Amino acid sequence: KIDFTQKWMYGGLDSNMLLQYIAWVTYPVVLITFSAGFTQILAPQAVGSGIPEMKTILRGVVLKEYLTFKTFVAKVIGLTCALGSGMPLGKEGPFVHVASLCAALLSKFMAPLFGGIYMNELRNTEMLSAACAVGVGCCFAAPIGGVLFSIEVTSTFFAVRNYWRGFFAATFSAFIFRVLAVWNQEEETITALFKTRFRLDFPFDLQELPAFAILGIACGFGGALFVYLNRLIVECMRKQKTINKFLLRKRLVYPALVTLLISTLTFPPGFGQFMAGQLTQHESLVALFDNRTWCRHGVAEEFDYTSHHHAWKHPQVNVFITLILFIIMKFWMSAVATTMPVPCGAFMPVFLIGAGFGRLVGEVMATMFPDGIHADGSVYPIVPGGYAVVGAAALSGAVTHTVSTAVIVFELTGQISHILPVMIAVILANAVAQSLQPSLYDSIIRIKKLPYLPELGMGHHEKYNIRVEDIMVRDVRYITLISCYRDLQEMLLTGQLKTLALVESSDSMILLGSIERLQLQSLLSFQLGRQRRLEYLRRLAQDNGNHDPLPSLNTDSTPSSPCSHTHINASTNTNARQAVGRWHVPIRRETYSTLTRNYAKMTFTTQEFRSCSVLSSFSLQIAEWEEQQLDEPVDFKNCKIDPAPFQLVEQTSLHKTHTIFSLLGLDHAYVTSMGRLVGVVSLKELRKAIEGSVTVTGVKVRPPLASFRDSGNSTSVSEVTELHKLCIRHRGLSLPREPNCFILYFYYCQQNPMKRPNQKQVCLSLSDFPVLSVAL
Amino acid sequence: KIDFTQKWMYGGLDSNMLLQYIAWVTYPVVLITFSAGFTQILAPQAVGSGIPEMKTILRGVVLKEYLTFKTFVAKVIGLTCALGSGMPLGKEGPFVHVASLCAALLSKFMAPLFGGIYMNELRNTEMLSAACAVGVGCCFAAPIGGVLFSIEVTSTFFAVRNYWRGFFAATFSAFIFRVLAVWNQEEETITALFKTRFRLDFPFDLQELPAFAILGIACGFGGALFVYLNRLIVECMRKQKTINKFLLRKRLVYPALVTLLISTLTFPPGFGQFMAGQLTQHESLVALFDNRTWCRHGVAEEFDYTSHHHAWKHPQVNVFITLILFIIMKFWMSAVATTMPVPCGAFMPVFLIGAGFGRLVGEVMATMFPDGIHADGSVYPIVPGGYAVVGAAALSGAVTHTVSTAVIVFELTGQISHILPVMIAVILANAVAQSLQPSLYDSIIRIKKLPYLPELGMGHHEKYNIRVEDIMVRDVRYITLISCYRDLQEMLLTGQLKTLALVESSDSMILLGSIERLQLQSLLSFQLGRQRRLEYLRRLAQDNGNHDPLPSLNTDSTPSSPCSHTHINASTNTNARQAVGRWHVPIRRETYSTLTRNYAKMTFTTQEFRSCSVLSSFSLQIAEWEEQQLDEPVDFKNCKIDPAPFQLVEQTSLHKTHTIFSLLGLDHAYVTSMGRLVGVVSLKELRKAIEGSVTVTGVKVRPPLASFRDSGNSTSVSEVTELHKLCIRHRGLSLPREPNCFILYFYYCQQNPMKRPNQKQVCLSLSDFPVLSVAL
Repeated sequence: KIDFTQKWMYGGLDSNMLLQYIAWVTYPVVLITFSAGFTQILAPQAVGSGIPEMKTILRGVVLKEYLTFKTFVAKVIGLTCALGSGMPLGKEGPFVHVASLCAALLSKFMAPLFGGIYMNELRNTEMLSAACAVGVGCCFAAPIGGVLFSIEVTSTFFAVRNYWRGFFAATFSAFIFRVLAVWNQEEETITALFKTRFRLDFPFDLQELPAFAILGIACGFGGALFVYLNRLIVECMRKQKTINKFLLRKRLVYPALVTLLISTLTFPPGFGQFMAGQLTQHESLVALFDNRTWCRHGVAEEFDYTSHHHAWKHPQVNVFITLILFIIMKFWMSAVATTMPVPCGAFMPVFLIGAGFGRLVGEVMATMFPDGIHADGSVYPIVPGGYAVVGAAALSGAVTHTVSTAVIVFELTGQISHILPVMIAVILANAVAQSLQPSLYDSIIRIKKLPYLPELGMGHHEKYNIRVEDIMVRDVRYITLISCYRDLQEMLLTGQLKTLALVESSDSMILLGSIERLQLQSLLSFQLGRQRRLEYLRRLAQDNGNHDPLPSLNTDSTPSSPCSHTHINASTNTNARQAVGRWHVPIRRETYSTLTRNYAKMTFTTQEFRSCSVLSSFSLQIAEWEEQQLDEPVDFKNCKIDPAPFQLVEQTSLHKTHTIFSLLGLDHAYVTSMGRLVGVVSLKELRKAIEGSVTVTGVKVRPPLASFRDSGNSTSVSEVTELHKLCIRHRGLSLPREPNCFILYFYYCQQNPMKRPNQKQVCLSLSDFPVLSVAL
Repeated sequence: KIDFTQKWMYGGLDSNMLLQYIAWVTYPVVLITFSAGFTQILAPQAVGSGIPEMKTILRGVVLKEYLTFKTFVAKVIGLTCALGSGMPLGKEGPFVHVASLCAALLSKFMAPLFGGIYMNELRNTEMLSAACAVGVGCCFAAPIGGVLFSIEVTSTFFAVRNYWRGFFAATFSAFIFRVLAVWNQEEETITALFKTRFRLDFPFDLQELPAFAILGIACGFGGALFVYLNRLIVECMRKQKTINKFLLRKRLVYPALVTLLISTLTFPPGFGQFMAGQLTQHESLVALFDNRTWCRHGVAEEFDYTSHHHAWKHPQVNVFITLILFIIMKFWMSAVATTMPVPCGAFMPVFLIGAGFGRLVGEVMATMFPDGIHADGSVYPIVPGGYAVVGAAALSGAVTHTVSTAVIVFELTGQISHILPVMIAVILANAVAQSLQPSLYDSIIRIKKLPYLPELGMGHHEKYNIRVEDIMVRDVRYITLISCYRDLQEMLLTGQLKTLALVESSDSMILLGSIERLQLQSLLSFQLGRQRRLEYLRRLAQDNGNHDPLPSLNTDSTPSSPCSHTHINASTNTNARQAVGRWHVPIRRETYSTLTRNYAKMTFTTQEFRSCSVLSSFSLQIAEWEEQQLDEPVDFKNCKIDPAPFQLVEQTSLHKTHTIFSLLGLDHAYVTSMGRLVGVVSLKELRKAIEGSVTVTGVKVRPPLASFRDSGNSTSVSEVTELHKLCIRHRGLSLPREPNCFILYFYYCQQNPMKRPNQKQVCLSLSDFPVLSVAL
């Protein structure tokens, strides 16, 4: 509709070039600016594609605000405006995000109604992955390709049982999408979106396959270049501090400028006439997929050009020049346009460029072999439209690192006759692009610094030799069962990991479980909290004979209370501690009860509290109490402990670690050796290890210990030692001297009368250690 | 070729009906019998489809002999003969098996050459899953559908990084497959296998969709019936003891009889004339996918029947009757034929039946609406061939529980115009079939009793409430660090699991790792082994002054030695033990050395050994030594311990357990609670739990504890108690009396001077336990 208005305005102002230009330019600028501004104000999370974020979310990372209603509104309205502007922007990424938003919101609304099943976290992940399939499926009306594409770009491991859910959802979305077109009387029945009419009996000759292969390889390089260019633009803007500052202050200037530049260049009476600038993406694709050859023997064909074809034919300029200009201009325009802070994807523009490139190759082939390549009698001219289809699939496959673009083009065009050329080109393009650059979505993930796990490259044999012990962090932060609250406090202040390991004791180091940081924080704040503080004060008051019941305090839990423990913690605690260290003034007993009563009042009158003259001695009192509280051993009773955090061993290979991390969506895993905690591996270490050996440009980092180990299958040395130590530790319960060791051994023998002790051990008689044996 | 010979013999004997019949019948019977006999003799593992076995292997289970060269030869030759017989047998399953065999053999040959990468177990799994894709891909020349189909039937979770490997391999296989046809001059270029020529502009009307949906639902029921029938036949033959006995003795009679029956029924001049019996599967499919309508207004159309079409037209019988007979006869024939002990699949026959059923529905529709359904001006007659395509995809999808059959039909026919009807029908057929029966492959897995994990059904909310504690086995077999060899022996004799848990001690029960049964067996046999036995005997001899060096014995390790320890173990050990129990004869010192020297000789002369008169006292001696050996604590130094077996906790939900088991291909997992081993869950328990609530016919088993628990998110009661116990245990090191507890607590406090003890604990002074504190 908006496109239509722009065209109408542009057409109506036929007489005046300037007015025409203003009309052509104003529309996109206004729309893009509005879109950028709207999303910026309502929900900045709605900016961009959404596929990288969905990939991160499906990996198990919780991204805040990405699946809220606000984001939904911002994304839908922002996307509509951005697409309407006619910029080279796609919609498949935002569609995925919108579908996931729908799914998340739906399950949120369903949860109170149906309970149970919608509460399950795994279930939600299943919902989201089906939603991603729907998003792509209804974007192209391609149910199969949509499902496969969404699997490829969002998942590392895919549950086959979710497969048909995706197909079910995507089929229905595609069905509804196409039925609407039928009901609108636009079409007679349900057919493909970009229907092609290539001949079926002889779609291509076997000898054309090398040309298709070269097209695929070229698309692979092109795809890698696109990803690189896109990242370069973003990083360039970030590094240039002056630009960066300016852009941060005036967020709407950048999209407006970019839009102005692009729409100026595509202005049809200006430069746009050489690059079919007046066509929308849809119109261009229809023209590029046409089954007629545009020029034969180097001369443009003179068939009756339907609606959109005349745009490609310029009276002075060759169709080859138009195509080359189209490809080059669209290439950088798309790379720039997708960096704008509006909801947009990059698939469709890349698809279009690929189609253009394929058409160019096809036209060249048609010019070189005007009568086709086939040797036998019948003449089968070359079909450049087929090359366009192949090019579109190959380039979009290279940029996104997927092979399912092949299926998408079959569904888009409604013809599967070119299956072999498409598959060959897509696979070659993928092979080239994957060895040069990450996929566009992974590139965005890195730019946005989202947590991710790089793929293991192929053919890097040394990665099968890296083991967990080479990459793990040995200095693990842990708490023990007998830790006191002070340890807890220190641990919380210094560490960064989301969870802390719980071990039996610092001697045994036997891993018992892991506790979330939040849980520990709540434990600590309960221990030093207002409730206990008041109880303490009341107890003090009672001890001094003043039986003040303080009933109002007991039930009071207003969050706006000025004496919340955090406040006291932050300000008075450190002061008080210093005070205690210097003077250690003996405080009279009488002060306590007065203080207590004052404190009870002060919880209601802040001003009084602050101006209170007894504050310093009062805070001293509180500080002493706090110190005492911190020295108490932690009570884990009300704490939620994960009793079986994921464990690896030192000998686990990097390959297996990577598989397990991506299978289970782990954030970190503890490394244990015979039950003892020896290290921790988090995503960060894993990422470093993989990229250290994957990086193409840099020097390959060989892990320090990789070469010093034998790959034998017997128990490694370290493992044996560990076991030996454990045996000693166990039999002697970590006691230093020999005799105790045997005493304890006897203790076990008494409990298990069937087992006879060794001869050497028998020679020591029990009578030497009478007390110990009784105690045991 | 073989088909061709049969046809030629049949055609040449035009004059004599009996000779014709004999020629028609003999061929298949001979071929099938040969195929059955050959595979039976060479490698019985080659029998059947191969997909169920591959699914099991990819799940991580090692099936012996399934990936050997012998099996490869048997499968290839057996399959060729079976397919040549013209029976309703398929080839996609065997192709998958053959491709996997190729991959396994290739990597076995590559391993010594390239080392490293081919040794990795994970790598081999990747190879195998790509091989499965190749198998299906080159069976139908359908690279995309092949990959998807192989993923759906063999994997539960699929690694997306293996995805393009599969596509790469499948594309090349499909390419070579089709190029061979071109080089054979059979075709002009690479096109689809069963090329259809439906019109592109209006493939179907929107109002035909309900008919397609009904077709899909009917195919769903048909698919479930097929799986049921197939299983019924196998189980029936197994249960009928007389049949079973007979079949076991004469293995070749059953396939010969079945072949005779089927080929008699399809004999063209006989009953075969009513069911197009003379056509091969390929010819029938080509005819069924034809885009012309066979009859209009109920009367057979009179177009020029090409080669195969006249088979469907019988002068007396309506085409509907022919189709119905064709469907019914082929249905049970295929179900019976696939139970024959030859390498064969069931996909192609089912596909054919589906096509026939679709054609029937299509012809009925064409008769009901001779001018098409479309309301507007132009007439678009109904295309029964389209219905045939939809029916083929739906029925094969229903039998195998896959949706990728949709993609396979697009690639087979080279047309994607019917995408929406196909998708809708396939999904509906899947929904119906999945709720009634397992897939054909899962059904075979159950019949063959291979280890498997059933899928979680949909919509069973209660499964989200079952937890591991409801299903786990609490009586876990374990060994401790201080176990003696006798415990080991008992454990090995009684338990069945492949691995045993290693715990710290039977008090603490802290899980340290798991040891494979084989490892333990080798430990035990080393302890009681020949080497040590001889050493002992030599020592005895030395003690008695006879310095017999026995050099020959020391280096001797001939495997044919009759006195290998197993022999002695089995025969003399039990006798000797009884002997010791009854008499306990004191043996004179002098006998030892004599015996020893005799023994040394006897290792070379069995006859002497057996007839030795001093055997009984000798074995007594040995038995005593053995008893002594068994009482020694186990030395785990040379034992390969898995230090981090997979652990679950009691609160893990069934859903999550299922996911983890299928993700990691686990066989069993230990259930721990704060590091303590409390139970074990194996595939068996999991299967029982899932089927208990999935089973459609039986009563739903509700786990005993499921209703008694709160679904709160705080730490559950049992967990807290566990922790509390552990705290006590830890602080008191499992000593029963209070004082020690505090002493040990002090010990820790001394080591960690920062932590102050509790006031209550301070009141006990150290001086009360002087000896203990020093000892500590």
